[in-house]
Amino acid sequence: MTVTPTRAETTATTATGNGTSVDPDDVTIAYIGGGSRQWAPNLIQDLAQSPLDGEVRLYDTHHESAEQNARFGNWVQDQEGATADWQYEATETLEATLTGADVVIISTQYDPAETFVHDLDIPKEYGIYGAVAATIGPGGIFRAMRTIPQYREFAAAIREYCPDAWVFNYTNPVHFVTRALYDEYPGINALGLCHEVLGTRHRLARYAREELDMDAERSDVSVNVKGINHFTWVDEARCKGVDLWPVLEDLVESEHAHQEFTWDDLAEESVFTDNWQVTWELFRRFDVLPAAGDRHLIEYATWFMQGGQEGLNRWGVKRTGSDYRAKHWTPAESDQTTDVEAWLSGEKEFELTESNETFVDILLALAGEDTYVTNVNLPNVGQVEDLQSDAVVETNALIRAGEVRPVSAGGFPRPVRSLIRGHIDTIETVIEASRDGDLDAAFEGFLIDQQIRTLQTEDARELFAKLVVAEEEYLEDWDLEGSSVLAESEAYTSA
Amino acid sequence: MTVTPTRAETTATTATGNGTSVDPDDVTIAYIGGGSRQWAPNLIQDLAQSPLDGEVRLYDTHHESAEQNARFGNWVQDQEGATADWQYEATETLEATLTGADVVIISTQYDPAETFVHDLDIPKEYGIYGAVAATIGPGGIFRAMRTIPQYREFAAAIREYCPDAWVFNYTNPVHFVTRALYDEYPGINALGLCHEVLGTRHRLARYAREELDMDAERSDVSVNVKGINHFTWVDEARCKGVDLWPVLEDLVESEHAHQEFTWDDLAEESVFTDNWQVTWELFRRFDVLPAAGDRHLIEYATWFMQGGQEGLNRWGVKRTGSDYRAKHWTPAESDQTTDVEAWLSGEKEFELTESNETFVDILLALAGEDTYVTNVNLPNVGQVEDLQSDAVVETNALIRAGEVRPVSAGGFPRPVRSLIRGHIDTIETVIEASRDGDLDAAFEGFLIDQQIRTLQTEDARELFAKLVVAEEEYLEDWDLEGSSVLAESEAYTSA
Amino acid sequence: MTVTPTRAETTATTATGNGTSVDPDDVTIAYIGGGSRQWAPNLIQDLAQSPLDGEVRLYDTHHESAEQNARFGNWVQDQEGATADWQYEATETLEATLTGADVVIISTQYDPAETFVHDLDIPKEYGIYGAVAATIGPGGIFRAMRTIPQYREFAAAIREYCPDAWVFNYTNPVHFVTRALYDEYPGINALGLCHEVLGTRHRLARYAREELDMDAERSDVSVNVKGINHFTWVDEARCKGVDLWPVLEDLVESEHAHQEFTWDDLAEESVFTDNWQVTWELFRRFDVLPAAGDRHLIEYATWFMQGGQEGLNRWGVKRTGSDYRAKHWTPAESDQTTDVEAWLSGEKEFELTESNETFVDILLALAGEDTYVTNVNLPNVGQVEDLQSDAVVETNALIRAGEVRPVSAGGFPRPVRSLIRGHIDTIETVIEASRDGDLDAAFEGFLIDQQIRTLQTEDARELFAKLVVAEEEYLEDWDLEGSSVLAESEAYTSA
Amino acid sequence: MTVTPTRAETTATTATGNGTSVDPDDVTIAYIGGGSRQWAPNLIQDLAQSPLDGEVRLYDTHHESAEQNARFGNWVQDQEGATADWQYEATETLEATLTGADVVIISTQYDPAETFVHDLDIPKEYGIYGAVAATIGPGGIFRAMRTIPQYREFAAAIREYCPDAWVFNYTNPVHFVTRALYDEYPGINALGLCHEVLGTRHRLARYAREELDMDAERSDVSVNVKGINHFTWVDEARCKGVDLWPVLEDLVESEHAHQEFTWDDLAEESVFTDNWQVTWELFRRFDVLPAAGDRHLIEYATWFMQGGQEGLNRWGVKRTGSDYRAKHWTPAESDQTTDVEAWLSGEKEFELTESNETFVDILLALAGEDTYVTNVNLPNVGQVEDLQSDAVVETNALIRAGEVRPVSAGGFPRPVRSLIRGHIDTIETVIEASRDGDLDAAFEGFLIDQQIRTLQTEDARELFAKLVVAEEEYLEDWDLEGSSVLAESEAYTSA
Repeated sequence: MTVTPTRAETTATTATGNGTSVDPDDVTIAYIGGGSRQWAPNLIQDLAQSPLDGEVRLYDTHHESAEQNARFGNWVQDQEGATADWQYEATETLEATLTGADVVIISTQYDPAETFVHDLDIPKEYGIYGAVAATIGPGGIFRAMRTIPQYREFAAAIREYCPDAWVFNYTNPVHFVTRALYDEYPGINALGLCHEVLGTRHRLARYAREELDMDAERSDVSVNVKGINHFTWVDEARCKGVDLWPVLEDLVESEHAHQEFTWDDLAEESVFTDNWQVTWELFRRFDVLPAAGDRHLIEYATWFMQGGQEGLNRWGVKRTGSDYRAKHWTPAESDQTTDVEAWLSGEKEFELTESNETFVDILLALAGEDTYVTNVNLPNVGQVEDLQSDAVVETNALIRAGEVRPVSAGGFPRPVRSLIRGHIDTIETVIEASRDGDLDAAFEGFLIDQQIRTLQTEDARELFAKLVVAEEEYLEDWDLEGSSVLAESEAYTSA
Repeated sequence: MTVTPTRAETTATTATGNGTSVDPDDVTIAYIGGGSRQWAPNLIQDLAQSPLDGEVRLYDTHHESAEQNARFGNWVQDQEGATADWQYEATETLEATLTGADVVIISTQYDPAETFVHDLDIPKEYGIYGAVAATIGPGGIFRAMRTIPQYREFAAAIREYCPDAWVFNYTNPVHFVTRALYDEYPGINALGLCHEVLGTRHRLARYAREELDMDAERSDVSVNVKGINHFTWVDEARCKGVDLWPVLEDLVESEHAHQEFTWDDLAEESVFTDNWQVTWELFRRFDVLPAAGDRHLIEYATWFMQGGQEGLNRWGVKRTGSDYRAKHWTPAESDQTTDVEAWLSGEKEFELTESNETFVDILLALAGEDTYVTNVNLPNVGQVEDLQSDAVVETNALIRAGEVRPVSAGGFPRPVRSLIRGHIDTIETVIEASRDGDLDAAFEGFLIDQQIRTLQTEDARELFAKLVVAEEEYLEDWDLEGSSVLAESEAYTSA
Repeated sequence: MTVTPTRAETTATTATGNGTSVDPDDVTIAYIGGGSRQWAPNLIQDLAQSPLDGEVRLYDTHHESAEQNARFGNWVQDQEGATADWQYEATETLEATLTGADVVIISTQYDPAETFVHDLDIPKEYGIYGAVAATIGPGGIFRAMRTIPQYREFAAAIREYCPDAWVFNYTNPVHFVTRALYDEYPGINALGLCHEVLGTRHRLARYAREELDMDAERSDVSVNVKGINHFTWVDEARCKGVDLWPVLEDLVESEHAHQEFTWDDLAEESVFTDNWQVTWELFRRFDVLPAAGDRHLIEYATWFMQGGQEGLNRWGVKRTGSDYRAKHWTPAESDQTTDVEAWLSGEKEFELTESNETFVDILLALAGEDTYVTNVNLPNVGQVEDLQSDAVVETNALIRAGEVRPVSAGGFPRPVRSLIRGHIDTIETVIEASRDGDLDAAFEGFLIDQQIRTLQTEDARELFAKLVVAEEEYLEDWDLEGSSVLAESEAYTSA
Repeated sequence: MTVTPTRAETTATTATGNGTSVDPDDVTIAYIGGGSRQWAPNLIQDLAQSPLDGEVRLYDTHHESAEQNARFGNWVQDQEGATADWQYEATETLEATLTGADVVIISTQYDPAETFVHDLDIPKEYGIYGAVAATIGPGGIFRAMRTIPQYREFAAAIREYCPDAWVFNYTNPVHFVTRALYDEYPGINALGLCHEVLGTRHRLARYAREELDMDAERSDVSVNVKGINHFTWVDEARCKGVDLWPVLEDLVESEHAHQEFTWDDLAEESVFTDNWQVTWELFRRFDVLPAAGDRHLIEYATWFMQGGQEGLNRWGVKRTGSDYRAKHWTPAESDQTTDVEAWLSGEKEFELTESNETFVDILLALAGEDTYVTNVNLPNVGQVEDLQSDAVVETNALIRAGEVRPVSAGGFPRPVRSLIRGHIDTIETVIEASRDGDLDAAFEGFLIDQQIRTLQTEDARELFAKLVVAEEEYLEDWDLEGSSVLAESEAYTSA
């Protein structure tokens, strides 16, 4: 009999970390992935207009990009509208970046766009039409397998150099990656952040304006949100206290919620356009409202993927083409308007703008300037009572001076719970496998993935092997040689 | 906030019922479905050779069949080898059948073979190649939907007429049906019984003979078994105390466990032939051994179904043809050798034989003649620690005088647990829906079924509607008119 | 086998109610117990200075007191400093009081002071020196037994007349009483409120001033709080973001935390004086900080009660004398400064003052004017992960427009958890017993109470019987005649 | 935030070990504590009459006693009635004893009788009148603190020398000690064994004879048993299938169950006499039947201890005097009839007798000769659904060839569950403290013990310190110097 201690019996847990106290006049921010071309310039501008002062260290494997952002950061301080005082510096080691940091931002892209093309195209050969293919399903799992080992390194470095820092993870797949940070360093104070729920609140504000004639914007809408990243659900929504449920119940029966689309309807639209038809159908079925873009939802409610390209289009979803991926590094860059070089050289006129990001709001709350509530990804310590303990779940959190604490969000109707728990099982299986780089154990998670379960046994193995072959150079932390799954697959052995 | 009491906080539960004490010299057995052409004659012969005496009441909607079995039962008492003393009578009401009964056997087939043909053929139109289509998946769910209401009636009648009786349910889908009995009458002492695990022990005895040169038969093999009916798993197996795991670990790597089959290989085989290739593949993957026929396993580990007829055949599984179903009522009758009429008329010579059924063994144990251990289906009170409470699970049980008590079987590796928990969610959703005949709620269970999740949204709804249309006359307890799912489906509205 | 459904498997729960939307310009408040001489005048003054307008209905078994408060309420509108517009009315039925109410305040005292004297004095005969004797232990249990039936009536009336109203319960024992409201009407939106944790934050602000030289008041101090009412604990505390733990760890080792008291030291002090010596000792022992007055804590950490009067005094606790109780209705009235009659008659000069109550702050937040965080008592839906589900626990809650939602507070070190779970078992046993008025079942809760476990078997029964005899007229909802415990007790049978 | 993995999410567990297969013709038994004067000679005689053959290695810190038992063991083989073939040998190291063993018996007494005297007498000074003082309460905890470190060594040696052996622990406190074995070596196949439940079945057989006129002995009585060692409960009992509950319900109302005793009544009785008055009172109160001697029960249902010596006597319990302890090593030796020396020398006539021990029955079952059901102590993997996971609980187990598996026993009425969970919290706290020898952490377990909670704070600390002072030399694995509890106690600092 093997008996291992259960948490509830052996440890008192608190629902948040004991993070660094943030001094609004002297914040040290370490930015891993600080060479980013879109997110970093946005942050720099947000900070310049904030009531906070301090220092930002930019670290990137592309050191030159970090240096350019540092130049830009220091330059922005002198531009019109910049009221804060921030110093920027490009760093070359994790130690130099992290030592003494109060806040760590992690937003990286480890492997080249090429891998994303594989994540989209190879599964497609097997009839798996992921719309994004970056957070669950074969593409999401392989992205996780490439990314997790690197994040274990970050977590270990944080434990060594700034164990109490507040860590903001923006890297996808947020649930896998945030979980890996906690798995490596259980004492970390990390939050996984994502825009999808903000988008839902934005949309709900629109309905409040249109249907209730209210003067409403995103911040007027409050929701009770729960689930896992990209498969979050809302079961209460209010605009300035007014219950929006009756509005939703009307709309779901209307034509608005019964639209069908064809490729032609979507041809000119951005892949990010969200037609909410998947959302309405799920709401109609289960009486809770999904709170993520349709392009993400279909990868978790996999029956929407079973009609191929045409089936996706019918529900208003336009698949991220791999050609798109080949051109752009991350979805966030799709509408890229920043051109740091042109601004610095004066080639392009610069005007200080504010992004919609919540980072500065969160930082202000941590520094004690406000009480802020927003959705974050954190290990489950009861905030979603019927999902697995310790899995990284997404709910609202209360953020105050030195404190981030999830808000109790309750549970789910059984069918929705069943879907989410299934996805968590995939995630947890891969996380556990990643401890030793056990590829066959990761394949068990792959095999029970809800997208992959449409493949027959041999095909699932072959798909797995082909992805390994295509992305082998980015899987160096995994034990390929010891894998019997690969050994059984001609796709690998003959490669 | 809606708060309902949880069991653990409000009720002391015991792991078995407080059943009737069974007097070996005077057992009253009520047999619902007692007109059976195969199982009843077998039982009659088993009882005739047992050390038990008593009375059997045969109840059947086909009263004549029950009468014929009663004649046969009384006639058998006078045949050579019959040592016990049993009286048989055909009854016409549940009241007359159940009043004062110590033991109730339920083994019925409510609806005609035609419905089974639909269960197999309509899903096949949608690419769902169930091998049996009778316990999970679209066919299994519809069989459950037709059967559950009737079993609620049986449970209510048992509560009224013989509340402490021991109830043996042999009707499929065993997990749905046994659960319905408990859902209707929580105090019932019901066991769900099935042969599949016995088959695994039989097979393991063969391996002990062949690989270890032991003198072994089924009763020499003990296993630790757990799961749900038809998706049960073994993680320890011994023959006379000798650990069989090393044998299995050798075999799974051998040619024996790497056979591929074609239709031609299977053409002459019975649909019940079990080639164990699905079993070996699952064992290879998850390190626990499935303990049900391959034809059942593929319906729960649904990736084996994704290659259509050919894919099933490749793994050695021959699909139950609907033509077969049209001819035979139940699988058990496939090898039918009984011909009661011919025996009674003397046309065919009669020789008393013993079946392999465990019923008499269990009865003897309940009567205090022995301690008996066998696999049974019971509500989960902890015997499978990581499956849902109260779901009907299958494990070994200890059976002694007046007592049936599940044996603690531990838990599962996460991926296997994930699959099983998912199936339980389907079952529990349908059971809950059946309380009020809420068809849309049942559709939620249908939609999350692991076979059906290969369909796109519209197809799942259409398949559901077509099955309703085809089997409407056997679904009279369900609220078809109030169903918005049906209202949305042209397949129904135009029918 | 008796199987009842568990919540987690059958119901989706949300962590708060779907309460009425509160319009700040038109709030209807129903006040049960509205004849109060202290709390009502305070509330009237707080409302007069708030940005809210509306109507208050005062209901009381002493109708005249309610009428006087109504006169006072209407009169206050015209006094200097009153900026809001409120109408007051004394009502005579629950129907008239509750119909259409947005908010219900419940703060009552059912039975006369005499019963409190019994609660203190009779247990004292058995060596049980409760300091308050009003929330746990023999006195607390009997107070609960007298109060619960009445609150079941209130809950039923709320379900009928204003099912979505926000219900504020101020009546002790808060955990028992709030639980009874939910037990009777699971859909109620009730909060249990209490001052103790506010007192702790007040004290922590003092330490921040004294030890850290900060400019600090109660509202600057944030804590992570959890437990049950009057036995709440803090495991994180900050003042304006600054971690107070190091301060506490210093103080606990200092002389400040090692004071001993005698009766003489306490003679002149109010019974409400809190010397924090019990608090320090518990902190020293378990590394988490209790957050309730020492006079309450000793009744839950019962070893502090084992030295009688002297033992209490040594720890700085002054017992509430029963003579005190006989004079005053409720503890809150001890420092009574209100004299409505004198104000109305002009005998005493009136000056509008503000109380420290959080009621108006909560109301403002519910009306969407603010985001407010304070400690409240709510059924456990995961906010304290290792306490019993559904028990009423105390943690912080996030309060926003139309929404009250507990904040995840984590769990406990095992020894503290053990104490709390034990008290919850007493509470839940009595609540369950109260459903049918089963006195013997209530005695089981009494017997396992941690104060009473110091009595031998016969004495526990006798104490129970004596309390029944003394308070019989207020226990009319309990089945005294059917009680075998009473039948066994000479104290009852001879009474 | 600190997150540790929970068992249910990360590990598949099985409910028993994968123990050594036992060959009935060649069993190697390692007996730690094999110098025992009573239990060893009994075992030797039982083995001599069994159908098993093999070898026994006797290991004892008193090597001479082991040698004498070895001589006796080899001598017995030649006596009349001895049919089996066993070789005995006294060993001098754990390595020599354990290497290759199939079965390990552990039954030791580490520290001299003097410590037991302290365990009884020092608490008595504080009004704690333990009847046995050896399994819970101050005496039990200190006995555990002295014993656990040694058993960690045994567990480590077993892991090294015979990792798959079946380990039988007979040493008290059985729950603490068996838990320590698993805590040190989670893969151990250890059972904790005890006679108390056998005594209950013996008593129930007597009632079956007396009240039902049945021909009954212990083995005819089956019970559903659950709880922790010495605080086990029965909620179903049958004799040859006949429900004994009606008999118990009659008896509990009779004079038989309402006896009162005085010292004079008990003066001549053995301390082991069991008058069942505590048992009846608990049954009367909670409707489940305790299944341990009254002298043990009172230490867990501590209200029976609150009347001092007289109070114990009134309930028919005679306290184990410390004078008794000073003379005898273990309770089991009270009726000692063995005199190995006299037998060997021929001074006393020897007649082979059989003990009532279950050891040989269990061994036969493990060797595949039988299916055996008896009560054993094992980590909780669901067999008692509402007690803490992994705590060592006592239920029936099914024992077959190579297999010991707990039987699902269900849960408890809330008040009984509350008492047991409280005791488990004490046990688990001490076990956890013992990992690092953290004395202050152990004191937390001491402080929440249900016997000790009758002491005031200072007295609890003083009692703890006095016990440490008295038994210091047997506590060498604990960190006395680092203990702040001791540093605060004059009883220690001045000693």
